[in-house]
Amino acid sequence: MEQQPLVEFELTVEFRARFQEALDEHDADFIRKTLQDVKPADITTLLYEFTSEESKYVMDLLDIETQAEIISDLDRDTRKRFLKVYPPSEIVNFLNQLASDDTADILNELPIKEREQVLSGLEPELKMQVTELLRYEEHVAGGLMAKELIKARYNWTVVECVNEIRKQAENVNKFYAVYVVDEQDVLLGRVALQDLIVSDAKTLVADIYEHDVVSAETYLPDTEVAEMMKKYDLESIPVVNVQGQLVGRITIDDVVDVITEQAEEGRQIMAGITENIEEDDSVWRNTRARLPWLLIGIFGGLMNAKFMGLFEAELVRITAIAFFTPLIQATGGNVGIQSSSLIVQSLANPDFVDEGLWKRLVKVFFVAILNGVFLSLLVFGANVLLFGEYRLSLVVSLALFSVVLFASFIGTITPLILNKFGFNPALAAGPFITTTNDLLGLTIYFFTVHVML
Amino acid sequence: MEQQPLVEFELTVEFRARFQEALDEHDADFIRKTLQDVKPADITTLLYEFTSEESKYVMDLLDIETQAEIISDLDRDTRKRFLKVYPPSEIVNFLNQLASDDTADILNELPIKEREQVLSGLEPELKMQVTELLRYEEHVAGGLMAKELIKARYNWTVVECVNEIRKQAENVNKFYAVYVVDEQDVLLGRVALQDLIVSDAKTLVADIYEHDVVSAETYLPDTEVAEMMKKYDLESIPVVNVQGQLVGRITIDDVVDVITEQAEEGRQIMAGITENIEEDDSVWRNTRARLPWLLIGIFGGLMNAKFMGLFEAELVRITAIAFFTPLIQATGGNVGIQSSSLIVQSLANPDFVDEGLWKRLVKVFFVAILNGVFLSLLVFGANVLLFGEYRLSLVVSLALFSVVLFASFIGTITPLILNKFGFNPALAAGPFITTTNDLLGLTIYFFTVHVML
Repeated sequence: MEQQPLVEFELTVEFRARFQEALDEHDADFIRKTLQDVKPADITTLLYEFTSEESKYVMDLLDIETQAEIISDLDRDTRKRFLKVYPPSEIVNFLNQLASDDTADILNELPIKEREQVLSGLEPELKMQVTELLRYEEHVAGGLMAKELIKARYNWTVVECVNEIRKQAENVNKFYAVYVVDEQDVLLGRVALQDLIVSDAKTLVADIYEHDVVSAETYLPDTEVAEMMKKYDLESIPVVNVQGQLVGRITIDDVVDVITEQAEEGRQIMAGITENIEEDDSVWRNTRARLPWLLIGIFGGLMNAKFMGLFEAELVRITAIAFFTPLIQATGGNVGIQSSSLIVQSLANPDFVDEGLWKRLVKVFFVAILNGVFLSLLVFGANVLLFGEYRLSLVVSLALFSVVLFASFIGTITPLILNKFGFNPALAAGPFITTTNDLLGLTIYFFTVHVML
Repeated sequence: MEQQPLVEFELTVEFRARFQEALDEHDADFIRKTLQDVKPADITTLLYEFTSEESKYVMDLLDIETQAEIISDLDRDTRKRFLKVYPPSEIVNFLNQLASDDTADILNELPIKEREQVLSGLEPELKMQVTELLRYEEHVAGGLMAKELIKARYNWTVVECVNEIRKQAENVNKFYAVYVVDEQDVLLGRVALQDLIVSDAKTLVADIYEHDVVSAETYLPDTEVAEMMKKYDLESIPVVNVQGQLVGRITIDDVVDVITEQAEEGRQIMAGITENIEEDDSVWRNTRARLPWLLIGIFGGLMNAKFMGLFEAELVRITAIAFFTPLIQATGGNVGIQSSSLIVQSLANPDFVDEGLWKRLVKVFFVAILNGVFLSLLVFGANVLLFGEYRLSLVVSLALFSVVLFASFIGTITPLILNKFGFNPALAAGPFITTTNDLLGLTIYFFTVHVML
């Protein structure tokens, strides 16, 4: 709690240029003075603009707590790159300042040999906590929790509780409640700090604790932890093992990160980008992240070409049928994406009762009929006006109607199948469904043409 | 703080059927007994499965606090429908149990006449607070904040602070800190409850409060409030007016809702769905939400058809050129979506220094060149193998290369332009960009064909 003025830090192009200059000149005074009142999270933002070596120069001018906070703020990829310029002994110094969950995350990112070196250098208490945390997978409650928490026995008084808080307060960064346990460390409930403050010193914890607390088992997937915390509006959640013993706690800020990552991942899948990249990553990374889906699209396109080749005779006879392939394919693609993303959305929301495949399909079918009828009629009218060919217009509209129906079906069934076999159903909301529907649309269209013209 | 066992509530198809039966038979005893130990948030989930009238029957069996909590938990659309079965006097009863921010949100959803009736029935204190909140727009800090908070003067002692907390605690639902103000109510800082607990009773607030608190001005957009709270890992943030006076506070649970809504909106835009719908909404709503983008796609398709018609002579001469339109268009569409979604992502992330349009474009250009060269060579090889036509294969590959370049450019520039003119740049990551790129791809392809074949 240092005395600091309320400064708003804003990163501008000018400031960055001035800072770069100071870095080039090794102007330690300027850097120290500039960063004096800036919050660690803002310094983190600033460091993204410079190389690892430059960043280390800046870091070395800061106190160790600030350095540690910046390290834990950095995004994973930057941190991996950045920590390469640090010897294990310096990494140990950072980690000794951090909470067990952040320490475990960072250790997990280090190469195995370095990880062992760093782990063995940690302070005994932290080392024990982190060793336990490293046992858990990354994307479950156990991998998300911190070991630091305030524990109270149910037969304590409020004043005993406050004494425990005094003892623990320096280890535990932020806390909003004290967790109540029995002799076997089994979680019984919690006392919110606000209730502790207004209670009389001699009151028994047993008389004021909330019994109906929501807790997460260590193996609960992180997305479900997020859903629980959202649903019950929790700022922290205790984590218990299979015996019901309290083993850690998860705070909302970690869960916000889970929610954000999940959303970003979903968006990237839909956009057909396979790695978690950002616009300012290198040209090579950007290219590599885009190529896989583009290749799938190209493969689909080549199959389309080969397929159309089978109908060369028809195309030679009536060239105009080629005009409508984009219309058919675009509609199929759009309908497929719409359907699949709605299914992906409801699969991600555990609050729904699964009404079963058939009810789902019946509904999708009716929506498709409505959309299909409307669009086909419209296209029929437009085609008659634009091209004046009744027969071809009829064929196009009939094909369009079938494409809407089939694309809805494929868009609905694909994420359900992916989900059933343990794949991320969101994959179906990306270029995969578009490519499939492109081929499907073409098949339906040329089949209709073949039969009717 | 009632004594409740730790029950896990799970909503199954069987349970819903049994509950429906109880509803049909008006079996109040069963319903009361079943819901006795169930948390309000779980009852909310359950009510989504029944009609408004059935839900009201259930609600009337619960105590008023639980009813109020359920009402505030419901999603907006369901609540609107649901409150139609309630007279204003009963709505007043709910709202009197809720915090000012939830009350204001619900009032905003009521028809104007009813809103006035309900507002005038609220308890005086709440009415005053809500009237102030109603002045703010929905998507700014002022529209998100609650008026309930604990305020302490900087010249108080810890014990005075605790007395204030005792007085206020029943009004303020959850709090993690006390906000420190001067005589003019200007925000000076905060004391976390954990620091208050461990401080001696006679300590002055002035000696223990944190000075460097982050606060939000009332007019700050909610997405920026969310970014701030994420960046600084805050569980609550004080809201100040232009004079720096403390006027409210925002808690993380409200911000989590903002983040989730934003992510969902982004996903729906990408999927070409115009209303915030869920799979289990009515057939009609589902149809209506899908039609607008499908129509844009259809319009694009018709323009494509008309455009291809201009090249009928070429198509008659060499039918095979039609085979490759799907390949060209799919690639253009995929590249466009990839580019635009990366730009949308970095526009949504205020942590980047805007490097300026030119640097951005140069980078996009290089990524496009790399992808373009690779894909064109691949397609050239494949086409020679599949169709054995060197000249046509060369034309297709050249067109493909240009399409990758142009689609990258359009995908990059469109969200930037939309953003510049105040539209949501995410619009560019949906069917809009695909439709544009479809047309663009076709133009480039037929132009190349026209010149070279």
